[in-house]
Amino acid sequence: MLIVQKYGGTSVGNPERIKNVARRVVRTREQGHDVVVVVSAMSGETDKLINLSSQVNENPDPREMDMLLSTGERVTIALLAMAIQALGHKAQSFTGRQAGIVSDCVHTKARIEKISGERVKQALKDGKIAVVAGFQGITATDDVTTLGRGGSDLSAVAVAAALKADVCDIYTDVDGVYTTDPNMVPQARKLDKISYDEMLELASLGAKVLQTRSVEFAKKYNVPVRVLSSFNDNPGTLVTKEDADMEKVVVSGVAYDKNQVKVTVQGVPDKPGVAAKIFNTISENNVVVDMIIQNIGEGGLTDMSFTVPKTDAKKILDVMKKVVAEIGAKGVSVKEDIAKVSIVGVGMRSHSGVAAKMFSAMAKEGINIMMISTSEIKISIVIEAKYTELAVRVLHETFEMDKAA
Amino acid sequence: MLIVQKYGGTSVGNPERIKNVARRVVRTREQGHDVVVVVSAMSGETDKLINLSSQVNENPDPREMDMLLSTGERVTIALLAMAIQALGHKAQSFTGRQAGIVSDCVHTKARIEKISGERVKQALKDGKIAVVAGFQGITATDDVTTLGRGGSDLSAVAVAAALKADVCDIYTDVDGVYTTDPNMVPQARKLDKISYDEMLELASLGAKVLQTRSVEFAKKYNVPVRVLSSFNDNPGTLVTKEDADMEKVVVSGVAYDKNQVKVTVQGVPDKPGVAAKIFNTISENNVVVDMIIQNIGEGGLTDMSFTVPKTDAKKILDVMKKVVAEIGAKGVSVKEDIAKVSIVGVGMRSHSGVAAKMFSAMAKEGINIMMISTSEIKISIVIEAKYTELAVRVLHETFEMDKAA
Repeated sequence: MLIVQKYGGTSVGNPERIKNVARRVVRTREQGHDVVVVVSAMSGETDKLINLSSQVNENPDPREMDMLLSTGERVTIALLAMAIQALGHKAQSFTGRQAGIVSDCVHTKARIEKISGERVKQALKDGKIAVVAGFQGITATDDVTTLGRGGSDLSAVAVAAALKADVCDIYTDVDGVYTTDPNMVPQARKLDKISYDEMLELASLGAKVLQTRSVEFAKKYNVPVRVLSSFNDNPGTLVTKEDADMEKVVVSGVAYDKNQVKVTVQGVPDKPGVAAKIFNTISENNVVVDMIIQNIGEGGLTDMSFTVPKTDAKKILDVMKKVVAEIGAKGVSVKEDIAKVSIVGVGMRSHSGVAAKMFSAMAKEGINIMMISTSEIKISIVIEAKYTELAVRVLHETFEMDKAA
Repeated sequence: MLIVQKYGGTSVGNPERIKNVARRVVRTREQGHDVVVVVSAMSGETDKLINLSSQVNENPDPREMDMLLSTGERVTIALLAMAIQALGHKAQSFTGRQAGIVSDCVHTKARIEKISGERVKQALKDGKIAVVAGFQGITATDDVTTLGRGGSDLSAVAVAAALKADVCDIYTDVDGVYTTDPNMVPQARKLDKISYDEMLELASLGAKVLQTRSVEFAKKYNVPVRVLSSFNDNPGTLVTKEDADMEKVVVSGVAYDKNQVKVTVQGVPDKPGVAAKIFNTISENNVVVDMIIQNIGEGGLTDMSFTVPKTDAKKILDVMKKVVAEIGAKGVSVKEDIAKVSIVGVGMRSHSGVAAKMFSAMAKEGINIMMISTSEIKISIVIEAKYTELAVRVLHETFEMDKAA
């Protein structure tokens, strides 16, 4: 098999941990597999570099920021290659450029455009373990880029896709994907398998295991991804394409997100172009809107509600006050202390009554639902933040997520 | 003018100092010059990286070592470019590769093969200040190399040669080249000007201001080099091609080197091939021999003495014991606690009696001369280490080096 392994910053946080990763890599190699390792910067290094930059320029140029930050992963690949060599195996490090990871020119959040991987393939042919720097790429005009948050996961999946690897193992500090947050619900169960679509919904809903972009990439190129812990040998969770088995389970997981606020614009004139005006203005201010609901109104006026990240609350209030005046609405209010709770499962496609069951469970506990939003495999509700734990526990129990299918 | 400026690790040792360098660079730019800046890693960074590597592999692979160490300069170029931008000027950083510094494949001590500098030229045309990573290059097969000790000076001189710069300013923590070590001789005088050849002799004799390879490169491509302090505005020393003025001075400087030992092979059979046997064996063991003297012997036997670095003393003794047996010599001895003291000056070419004057000065002080070696512009003697300071002071006085020509 050709296995791509990815280790995050905590897993390579110091020389001892790098040696530990080297031992894991070598063990896989000695089982007869070809191995490509993708690594992040040692934990703390990126923050240290950002701190240095802020001391010389409060608003650093993105190109120079990428030049600076890309050094973190270079240090790790060199050290890991050395550590593998110390165990008697052949290894070679590759920068993003040397691995042929070509990106667009959007510094600090570049998108991968293509991966050649020629040198990596040759190294594997020569019996070497290839160690590739995550998080970085190179533009067609030869400038270093970084791929933004979760970029190392993305590098790993992209390299796996380019090399047609059999599996991409993402090592983290948790040992898989759980039905929900185990800190909140002790009965939370680790999933053996989950579909790309379910993982995408969970990732975008605040389960921090895998970044959305990586899952999208894995889905697009059909790369099986395994989420594992680098601190134990548990089997982890396989993220893969949907199969018949998965559909038997109605709800695979329940996620929550406490980092949003609800914005309501009252008395919006119910005529064409008004909604467009509101959301164009928000978009121009670079605020990402999540859920949107329009209540049917009386007398030609409606209320419009939407959620935005908590960090944008102040900004959105200022922006909306102007918009309210322009469109002739009655006013705008922001409600903090809300939470979005969602259930996800590909089984919803073939099972009916899931929403009703969810809403009943909430009603039984006296939890008021402020907003509802659904997709083919997901139902999200917005509730008071103080009921988050209760709602998550009740939903976990209602849909029997502690039991395997 | 097109000015290349090089700042060493101490000059960019922390964010405050980097901002100080940025101010110097901008000042030069505002005087109407085009500026290319070459920088080293922040002081301490390279040692930190070497320490990390030694924790994962006691004998790290040179290719991986270069991958690791080349990150130090990348951090500095990004930070300096940001600091210059903070002062309102356009700046762009360049790795060794982006500057087109192509080297051979001898990792950790690569030699520069050619410099294209196309991107740097374009940046200058665009009105930017170019910030180039010193100490590093790229092989034709796209691997990162480092240029070994003093590599950043070499990068600066090579970039200056490639861009046909008007001058290459090397900023250090001393403010120029002195007639001798000012810590030893308070009367030591800073030289306004010195020839490449004199600088070469002084550099190889242990004056640590400029690395030999940089001076050789500067001489070959006729790049005027100025040695300056980054902590004050003193005019420094210009290293340039020889002119008539320089020949008026008989001795420009006196240097010393306490890091050698003297090895003597006694009773060497005086027949062809014996010396070759000795020095081939030393060379095969990668020991660099400096001075060599063969005393005329009696009865077909001679004594052969040479100096090697102190760090190789033990190794050379082991090696020579075997050779002594093979060639049928009488024995070998190593004398530590010696010093080499040298006087240098292009004026020696046209002045006679310099050696006699030197030897008389030593005799007057009762200093015994153990070895003598001369070149066209240099006379070196080996004496007991304890007389080093005395010899340097006396020679400085004898040749009136405290007085300008």
